[in-house]
Amino acid sequence: MSVAIMCSGGDSSGMNPAIKSFVDNCYEKNITPYFIYDGFEGLIDGNIKKASHEDVAGIMHLGGTIIRTSRSKRFYEYECRQIAYKNLQKFGIDKVILLAGDGSFKGFNQFSEEFDISFVGIPATIDNDIYGTDYCLGVDTSLNIIKHALDEIRDTSASFKRAFVVETMGRDCGYLALISSIISGAEVCIIPEIKYNLNTLEEKLKKELDEGRAYILAVVAEGTKQTQHIKEWFEKNFDIETRVMILGHIQRGGNPTVFDRLMASEFVTLGLDKLIANEKTKSVIAYKGSEFIFINIDTVTQNRYTINSKLLKMVKKLTR
Amino acid sequence: MSVAIMCSGGDSSGMNPAIKSFVDNCYEKNITPYFIYDGFEGLIDGNIKKASHEDVAGIMHLGGTIIRTSRSKRFYEYECRQIAYKNLQKFGIDKVILLAGDGSFKGFNQFSEEFDISFVGIPATIDNDIYGTDYCLGVDTSLNIIKHALDEIRDTSASFKRAFVVETMGRDCGYLALISSIISGAEVCIIPEIKYNLNTLEEKLKKELDEGRAYILAVVAEGTKQTQHIKEWFEKNFDIETRVMILGHIQRGGNPTVFDRLMASEFVTLGLDKLIANEKTKSVIAYKGSEFIFINIDTVTQNRYTINSKLLKMVKKLTR
Amino acid sequence: MSVAIMCSGGDSSGMNPAIKSFVDNCYEKNITPYFIYDGFEGLIDGNIKKASHEDVAGIMHLGGTIIRTSRSKRFYEYECRQIAYKNLQKFGIDKVILLAGDGSFKGFNQFSEEFDISFVGIPATIDNDIYGTDYCLGVDTSLNIIKHALDEIRDTSASFKRAFVVETMGRDCGYLALISSIISGAEVCIIPEIKYNLNTLEEKLKKELDEGRAYILAVVAEGTKQTQHIKEWFEKNFDIETRVMILGHIQRGGNPTVFDRLMASEFVTLGLDKLIANEKTKSVIAYKGSEFIFINIDTVTQNRYTINSKLLKMVKKLTR
Amino acid sequence: MSVAIMCSGGDSSGMNPAIKSFVDNCYEKNITPYFIYDGFEGLIDGNIKKASHEDVAGIMHLGGTIIRTSRSKRFYEYECRQIAYKNLQKFGIDKVILLAGDGSFKGFNQFSEEFDISFVGIPATIDNDIYGTDYCLGVDTSLNIIKHALDEIRDTSASFKRAFVVETMGRDCGYLALISSIISGAEVCIIPEIKYNLNTLEEKLKKELDEGRAYILAVVAEGTKQTQHIKEWFEKNFDIETRVMILGHIQRGGNPTVFDRLMASEFVTLGLDKLIANEKTKSVIAYKGSEFIFINIDTVTQNRYTINSKLLKMVKKLTR
Repeated sequence: MSVAIMCSGGDSSGMNPAIKSFVDNCYEKNITPYFIYDGFEGLIDGNIKKASHEDVAGIMHLGGTIIRTSRSKRFYEYECRQIAYKNLQKFGIDKVILLAGDGSFKGFNQFSEEFDISFVGIPATIDNDIYGTDYCLGVDTSLNIIKHALDEIRDTSASFKRAFVVETMGRDCGYLALISSIISGAEVCIIPEIKYNLNTLEEKLKKELDEGRAYILAVVAEGTKQTQHIKEWFEKNFDIETRVMILGHIQRGGNPTVFDRLMASEFVTLGLDKLIANEKTKSVIAYKGSEFIFINIDTVTQNRYTINSKLLKMVKKLTR
Repeated sequence: MSVAIMCSGGDSSGMNPAIKSFVDNCYEKNITPYFIYDGFEGLIDGNIKKASHEDVAGIMHLGGTIIRTSRSKRFYEYECRQIAYKNLQKFGIDKVILLAGDGSFKGFNQFSEEFDISFVGIPATIDNDIYGTDYCLGVDTSLNIIKHALDEIRDTSASFKRAFVVETMGRDCGYLALISSIISGAEVCIIPEIKYNLNTLEEKLKKELDEGRAYILAVVAEGTKQTQHIKEWFEKNFDIETRVMILGHIQRGGNPTVFDRLMASEFVTLGLDKLIANEKTKSVIAYKGSEFIFINIDTVTQNRYTINSKLLKMVKKLTR
Repeated sequence: MSVAIMCSGGDSSGMNPAIKSFVDNCYEKNITPYFIYDGFEGLIDGNIKKASHEDVAGIMHLGGTIIRTSRSKRFYEYECRQIAYKNLQKFGIDKVILLAGDGSFKGFNQFSEEFDISFVGIPATIDNDIYGTDYCLGVDTSLNIIKHALDEIRDTSASFKRAFVVETMGRDCGYLALISSIISGAEVCIIPEIKYNLNTLEEKLKKELDEGRAYILAVVAEGTKQTQHIKEWFEKNFDIETRVMILGHIQRGGNPTVFDRLMASEFVTLGLDKLIANEKTKSVIAYKGSEFIFINIDTVTQNRYTINSKLLKMVKKLTR
Repeated sequence: MSVAIMCSGGDSSGMNPAIKSFVDNCYEKNITPYFIYDGFEGLIDGNIKKASHEDVAGIMHLGGTIIRTSRSKRFYEYECRQIAYKNLQKFGIDKVILLAGDGSFKGFNQFSEEFDISFVGIPATIDNDIYGTDYCLGVDTSLNIIKHALDEIRDTSASFKRAFVVETMGRDCGYLALISSIISGAEVCIIPEIKYNLNTLEEKLKKELDEGRAYILAVVAEGTKQTQHIKEWFEKNFDIETRVMILGHIQRGGNPTVFDRLMASEFVTLGLDKLIANEKTKSVIAYKGSEFIFINIDTVTQNRYTINSKLLKMVKKLTR
């Protein structure tokens, strides 16, 4: 039996441990593992190779993905998907593990229906915005990198009377900003999920500054597009030197944390078992509560992720 | 209302974020927070102080505990516990949050029954060996420190044909060794929970060495007391240079991870609410599945923690 | 005898170890140490305090400066400097150690001439742009933070066919960008000191991309103001997805490296000895070759730092 | 022209950047680069391969050495050296760069005299014990790893009233222990180069403990063999819980620091130029003051490294 693994969309830390776990598991179970390089682009271009133990030696501690990823426009075209299918046929592959976000899941679902390919999607995006799962691979590593950066910014902030506006990734989802605010003791948290009120915040912060607060840390989710606005608000209303820090792509890299390595191993082991056991499956493996469950692909792509209300409540005081 | 916080037994990373969260929460809820320094020793010596915001500024990123901890023999004596009680009375404290392991929970339980003190125990030990909870504060930080050390040892191991025997902490519990083995791709894992078989391991590893394996990494839980034995086994049977590394106390320190900071916040917030809400409670707050639940102290101290079978299954191939 | 220490201008990592070393040294030599908080602003406002061992316990590993720093416009006015002098008189202070860059050295020099204050300037700026010294406190820590970020960006870059344009700090000086380029194996380095040629770079890089290069890393010094231009050049001429990363203030924070801790200790010990030994001094302690020498303040402020030609030669191939 | 690179003896961080720099430099200068794997053992076994750009892609951040190293007894035998020479002849190699310590330099010198091989030795050992050079490749990375461990031990020490005895590597040389003591603010430093006096230390430390010191950190060089003795001395004379921490092999691994990457590049570039320029050379490239100089191999191996007196003076107060 042949199974292939591929990535699509933005990379996240934990993909490499997943790839290593995939190859090790396959050989243990007498399955032939294949790599599809460069995401859907590589699928179309036939960039497919049998994977060996050597390919995955010493990759556990690497961020990113050794089989690379891509964003593909060509995959929207039927002709390209047809070529992709023929490429898989050449290697006798009809089962695929896909490390990606829900956009890519949707794209691959169409392909799998057209050409009868089984697949299990492993949620892997630092945005943590996939319906049905509490956790997407790479989020813990991202958060620890953000933590590290915020710790360093605190050091330098404490040296000046100053405000810092730090923008985190996450597209439309405020998860990274929310958790980062809590664990760094930020004073302000601006995320798409909560309507903020600068008037009450202003009053509260002015009082704290009067009482001796040395600096202010605001974490802003990129999805709000409010980074510049918050900066100007500080400068205008507080007369305090304000610096913006766009954390950017360092959030995607980094040595995968213990949690991401462990999740990578569990996602892959269970996903592979599912593909082996069933004739046909088009599902996403989700981490819900503390259980791993399989969710039909349509349920995942047709619903929208929302941050749970308990977490939202935890930062409410940082938004108004 | 007055509530005190204290630590007892071995320190773990995450205690400082918990202490900060405690003080912040108390002031928000108009409760007077107290620190009991130096564990049970300080309780007996009356080393108690009202806590302020300044006390906890800038401690989020520090391992250990700023209110210190201790192992106390004196607390076994009724006279000392009586003095301890009088010390609490002086400050009007009859509610305590205790960051500790199950030995300390047991000791404090007796005290609380004798003198009618309410308390919530927060499981905080890198051994992760407390009945009823899947997680003890500090474990994620410890594991990431071990990961970091194993990554560095891999680097140097790969430079030589060599075996490395790494001993992790955890007393009678093999949790740290088990998870470390999985996430570092170790070849051998020796823990108290699984009976190992060196004969089958020898055969397997010799085959891998013949096929080109450059080095072997064995993770051994201190509770097995087999570290030296495994070293000698390598030297005798494999004729391979073998080094022992006792990871020791670096496993206790370190900047708390995102997960430990978050858990610290949740444990404390819920624990404090429990103490405020109830007239009397003697319980431990546990993290079970993905829920926080309160367990009666007797249930916790009268039962023994066991690692779940799914995890044990994951390393079986590294033990025989 | 009383000696004070203060910071001015941008903070850099290594200031805290210097402050600790100052206090420890003073007590060993029976000198009374003073802190001047908040730079020249605090000097004017009389924010001065006798320093104790407790003040500096546990600050070795902290970036930034616990006595804070500032940029002051008021210090340009004679009236304010007069007030500052009176503040120093109150505490019997006529000797000062100043951790800062050359702008602050200049400002303090005028003050010291007007009011007969001895001082030793310790070069402390991540820009590494002070005449007469090969090294300014904090540079090694900054470089290691940049290295860490570039390592993480490499991980994620290797996952995509992509170009990364990373902007480093340093004001008009390209030192940080230059060294970062070398030690990260960047393909492009744009600094104020070297005139770049995009035509030859384009040809070279296109050839490498054709031969299989997966990604391009360009390090750009902020002083060139070319970050956006280089980004657009990549997009226009290479048809490659290009991301910009402004490293920003994480470059200022961070646990001081061994080298910065050691340099802090040496700078302070020698600087203090100079102040104690001489009746009058207005000098900067420089690290030249591998020796510490004292340079007259006028020589430092009237000359311009230039990167040595050997280093410039090392990156020439990354500029044209 | 063909030039080979090899490692011998204990590995140190910085070897991989040196290897990458070697390959890159060779291709720039139209020289054919060769790897000799597994040190002298691989030289005898003919484990030699032409090196490519792909071999060194992405190794900058790895500790250890991808071409591995060894300690060889066979190389003491003339017959084996004769075989080694024939192996080099097969590839037309008569110029070698050797990353190693002085023991290996000596061994290779004999070989090079017998068989007319030119070589440049690059000092690469974390012991920092090679005559003629102030710096050996890998030392800065080692020191920063030790720093990191000591910072973490401080965290946990501060949580208990406790003494910590930390043993650093370095064989007969106390360099690592000396520098670590200074930059971590240790209270005790025991190195082979300084005769310690426990009586005066005892008096001083008892006074400090009485005045409130919470914990004691002692750094002991492995070469003194006094680790256990110091532990027992603490327990016996101070009645304080004492823990020993043998840092061990984590000191050898780790992502090379900026300084080690830079030194690797400079050592290799200059060493290679020397080999290309001269007909014959048997020398070591040393870093002296802030200059790189070539020293005849006999001068290096016939003299003994001593730590400079200024550094020794800096820790005297921690030894008596």
